[in-house]
Amino acid sequence: MNNILIIGAGRSSSALINYVLKQASEKNWFVTVADADPSLAEQKVKNHPNGRATWLDVMKVNDRREMIGRADVVVSLLPAHLHLEVAHDCIKLKKHLITASYVSKEMYRLGDEARDRELIFMGEMGLDPGIDHMSAMEQIDEIKAKGGKLTAFRSYTGGVVAPESDDNPWNYKITWNPRNVVLAGQGTAQYLKNEKLKFVPYNRLFKEYWLTDINGLGEYEVYVNRDSLLYREVYGLEGIPNIIRGTIRHRGFCDAWNALVKIGLTDGSYPILDSGSITFHEWMEAYVEEGSGSVKERIANLIKEDVNSPVMKKLEWLGLFRKKKIRLKNATPALILEKLLLEKLKLKEDDKDMIVMKHEFEYELAGKMKLLTSTLVLKGHDNEDTAMSRLVGLPLGIFVKMVMEGRINSTGVNIPVMKEVYEPVLKELQEFGVVFEEKETDL
Amino acid sequence: MNNILIIGAGRSSSALINYVLKQASEKNWFVTVADADPSLAEQKVKNHPNGRATWLDVMKVNDRREMIGRADVVVSLLPAHLHLEVAHDCIKLKKHLITASYVSKEMYRLGDEARDRELIFMGEMGLDPGIDHMSAMEQIDEIKAKGGKLTAFRSYTGGVVAPESDDNPWNYKITWNPRNVVLAGQGTAQYLKNEKLKFVPYNRLFKEYWLTDINGLGEYEVYVNRDSLLYREVYGLEGIPNIIRGTIRHRGFCDAWNALVKIGLTDGSYPILDSGSITFHEWMEAYVEEGSGSVKERIANLIKEDVNSPVMKKLEWLGLFRKKKIRLKNATPALILEKLLLEKLKLKEDDKDMIVMKHEFEYELAGKMKLLTSTLVLKGHDNEDTAMSRLVGLPLGIFVKMVMEGRINSTGVNIPVMKEVYEPVLKELQEFGVVFEEKETDL
Repeated sequence: MNNILIIGAGRSSSALINYVLKQASEKNWFVTVADADPSLAEQKVKNHPNGRATWLDVMKVNDRREMIGRADVVVSLLPAHLHLEVAHDCIKLKKHLITASYVSKEMYRLGDEARDRELIFMGEMGLDPGIDHMSAMEQIDEIKAKGGKLTAFRSYTGGVVAPESDDNPWNYKITWNPRNVVLAGQGTAQYLKNEKLKFVPYNRLFKEYWLTDINGLGEYEVYVNRDSLLYREVYGLEGIPNIIRGTIRHRGFCDAWNALVKIGLTDGSYPILDSGSITFHEWMEAYVEEGSGSVKERIANLIKEDVNSPVMKKLEWLGLFRKKKIRLKNATPALILEKLLLEKLKLKEDDKDMIVMKHEFEYELAGKMKLLTSTLVLKGHDNEDTAMSRLVGLPLGIFVKMVMEGRINSTGVNIPVMKEVYEPVLKELQEFGVVFEEKETDL
Repeated sequence: MNNILIIGAGRSSSALINYVLKQASEKNWFVTVADADPSLAEQKVKNHPNGRATWLDVMKVNDRREMIGRADVVVSLLPAHLHLEVAHDCIKLKKHLITASYVSKEMYRLGDEARDRELIFMGEMGLDPGIDHMSAMEQIDEIKAKGGKLTAFRSYTGGVVAPESDDNPWNYKITWNPRNVVLAGQGTAQYLKNEKLKFVPYNRLFKEYWLTDINGLGEYEVYVNRDSLLYREVYGLEGIPNIIRGTIRHRGFCDAWNALVKIGLTDGSYPILDSGSITFHEWMEAYVEEGSGSVKERIANLIKEDVNSPVMKKLEWLGLFRKKKIRLKNATPALILEKLLLEKLKLKEDDKDMIVMKHEFEYELAGKMKLLTSTLVLKGHDNEDTAMSRLVGLPLGIFVKMVMEGRINSTGVNIPVMKEVYEPVLKELQEFGVVFEEKETDL
């Protein structure tokens, strides 16, 4: 095995491509980076002797298959809905497949075929999902090994701006797919509390946040994820009475985001009319009744905020009340909001992003209740070399190496919850500063 | 031309098939009714000498094309997302196409090709959309013809239960696609008031209903539709300062539906966990905090209702607090609600449904402001022969006849806003009791 194919050279790919090219020099591998925009691929490969940048339109089935046919391991960084096409090719052509995306039901259905061909299809091999699975499983397995009985598992992750670069009223900057930021949480969030299921609909999600302390950084807000219970079985936590996963944000974010939800600005399902010709001010005016106050006052009234409240200050700072044209034809509210956030909440060149991940494990051992917390805080270097892209790319890269070196025995469709995967990956990640701080207390 | 193909023999097809078969006897046409479930088609064709029931899996391209190839006019009653496949075949095979569904952007893009081949592709040829377009256009054209200047157009339609069959606390029964009932209004509703756009997000839609009087039947509730402005241009109402479309319901419905929205029960985007094993009572409990009161009391508290309020009575009557298993695996809240509504709000055998449609036109004529209202109330016969299925099927059938008889000069992709269509269709509909009552007053 000496050929690696990476499909997709977008914003999440730098750390992965750098890591794999470095390994390739030492191990004499050859790395092909393919993208619909070949210049993107070229920028990442930088004429590396063991690399090649190439053009690929993944919808061109023959081109795609030919390229996959020449590889031993395929990494797909494509949008999630395109992985399945690649996966079918990998089955047919007998290639291993690695992605950082959530594994869909359809993907899981390929499990038997992958296993029959002794292939590993590894999904959720990034940060969240990815490092969250691996770091949680390491602790869960350890607690179980020493005879502990888990009674609660809480796991929170957030990609935020580092405090030293936090210079806007939202205390937030976009460090990842902005569309996902805008649509986050739509649906019904689910968790387990005292053995009972709990559902939180979208209209309550950003109201019902809670606070958690991050070592040395103070209190952060957490809102519950849609998928808290998804991993109950795969983590081996059947029967645990409390399980919750959440998203971490700086203080003040959730109240302000809840205001956007209440006004209706996160709706991504239907385009609004005249979005190409109206101003932001007219857009806001369209959500309120006619009246004597200013549009800002009427919006404040609608969402039951004081006109000078911190939430209203955030809305104003975003530019929602400016008499400036939106200039996006046939856009949904969510799309308009996305473009606005991208403009206003952009990382500046020297800005550092920050990943915060915190697990809490409550367990009983020898009649005593314990609380173990395991916390990761990692900052990026600048707006290109972000903590986010490192923490998504490095696990992928390390796992590519392990597969290339034949160190993986697992086959089928998987997520990284098995010791043969998480142990070496977490160990190597430490070299890149990915170090969890653990603290244990009696309860 | 003597061959008609009707694809789809589901609940909406009876009135159409009966009408077309009756015409076929007189005119020596031949009608093929195709469905994935051929017994459904057989029930509708009833061995009629001019009819044939047949099996068709529309996804089988060759079968579909062969069948379309033998027809002169095709009526598609398929789910909306399948029309486009049929439309492409109709272009290729030079066949006219008629549907009762909303015309998608993709469908409109076939306009030139249809026109080049002198084909008519008529969409929105049912009730709403359909009769609403035709009856509104008749008045709009008349007002314009006499020199009137329209200042407001309001159009409301509802499919409800007739007062004599209204025997449940919701004052509502399901007379149409229950999934659409559950998901109604998700997105951003839009209308125009005093020349200003107004947007109503889903979280306010059922709170901000208003009342309208229907001749002789008293007051009804109306909530705004998503599509109020969609027809501004096609109706020739550019520049009109007020335009709104809405949905009509009996009194009490909107407050109760708003409670379902607030709790989170209309979310159709993600399945909830354990829906296969929990009870309705446990389902409701999952939406509220732990506490001392009953689940019903805690839900009342959550939605800020008195525990004995009319809204809470409706929720209880639906069975949301019963300790009965849901028994739907991997179901979204919306799907659970849909099944519950289908069970509890079903039309009984002798129940009559009722269609209510009301247009209001405000216009200036010779310096005077006038209000013209045009109202249709039509009741069904029983739970099979519903007003809903008649008012969807008859316009389709009448239009099929007109195309077969070569009476349509329009070509391309259309909706029924032109006089050559609405005039004869509305005229013939009168024979079936579709009579609008008009009232004009000075303002």
